[in-house]
Amino acid sequence: MIKLYQFHPSGNCYKVRLLLHQLSLPFETREVDLAAGEARTAEFKAMNPIAKTPTVELSPGVFLAESNAILCYFGEGTPYVPTDRLERARMLQWMFFEQYSHEPYVAVARAWLSFFGIPPGKERELEERIQKGYAALDIMEGELSKRPFFAGGHYSLADIALYAYTHVAHEGRFDLGRYPAILDWCERVRAQPGHVRITDAVPSPR
Amino acid sequence: MIKLYQFHPSGNCYKVRLLLHQLSLPFETREVDLAAGEARTAEFKAMNPIAKTPTVELSPGVFLAESNAILCYFGEGTPYVPTDRLERARMLQWMFFEQYSHEPYVAVARAWLSFFGIPPGKERELEERIQKGYAALDIMEGELSKRPFFAGGHYSLADIALYAYTHVAHEGRFDLGRYPAILDWCERVRAQPGHVRITDAVPSPR
Repeated sequence: MIKLYQFHPSGNCYKVRLLLHQLSLPFETREVDLAAGEARTAEFKAMNPIAKTPTVELSPGVFLAESNAILCYFGEGTPYVPTDRLERARMLQWMFFEQYSHEPYVAVARAWLSFFGIPPGKERELEERIQKGYAALDIMEGELSKRPFFAGGHYSLADIALYAYTHVAHEGRFDLGRYPAILDWCERVRAQPGHVRITDAVPSPR
Repeated sequence: MIKLYQFHPSGNCYKVRLLLHQLSLPFETREVDLAAGEARTAEFKAMNPIAKTPTVELSPGVFLAESNAILCYFGEGTPYVPTDRLERARMLQWMFFEQYSHEPYVAVARAWLSFFGIPPGKERELEERIQKGYAALDIMEGELSKRPFFAGGHYSLADIALYAYTHVAHEGRFDLGRYPAILDWCERVRAQPGHVRITDAVPSPR
């Protein structure tokens, strides 16, 4: 049984749950209390030296980290990865964009405003992060005005990666009402077979 | 002929030159003046909406962005990508680590200190970035104390991605003397066939 070490409200962890559900792969979860520093213990770092969630245990003692690498591991050879070489690279382009130009702004603003509080002295940094988050959303809006999904003409891992924090961006004070193409794309993502919501509980393994 | 739109001293751009050299794929370069905002022009954004270097033009009008996605495109099916599924995901794990936990600190400190200057009011942020850069180097040191390369037991795209900014980290005020395993790994990377240095000029296409 696949074990997902996670913080349930995290978009990075949600990505993994969403794909595993869509692939009908059974898994169980272990909650990691990030606020209590549970990802920074020696025990956790022995599983994942990068000390972050999600971390998956594929088989006893075999761990994989980084949400988008986990998506690639499970997605390989499935309809969620384009068969064309360039489109496969295009999917990765948007997944690296997500981690470099989107997550540090959209997700961190949400984490501070909705879960952990703004760290002392970081009020101005929050404003900068919101500004850069809007820049990422602007880029997404431009793309989604031209195509229905980010790579290969259909729903792929790139859409899972970008949907995770985009659809809850309002929890980081972003106004998605400015972005009609993003809102339409969110509907298309939610209409995919096997979709689950970020707040959905993980069913107990049967 | 592959065209690489680049800022030569950028580690992200160097990654692409290094792999293309090692694969004996001929290419030509166009320098993008980042300080003059050339990556933010409408002309450049039409090629790459993310507005960053490197951007490659694979064939006339066909562009690919994000350094690590470009590595995956050219590396696929070559000895620089492990054949084992888990090791391939492990390679991606370290490439996403590079973009999320290493580049924003090690590369940005170097960019500010060696190329563009510290932006006004960012002195304290620089210190934070150096601290987080050391955290990334600590994680690398831990891994490289246990294995010669990051994935699959041999040199892969993950090593190219992490070498690019690590080996010039001193230009961002990082003291690599603290990291014997990283220094040994840098020697192993430099010993790979077809290695070129970040300062090496691109030969004119024949």
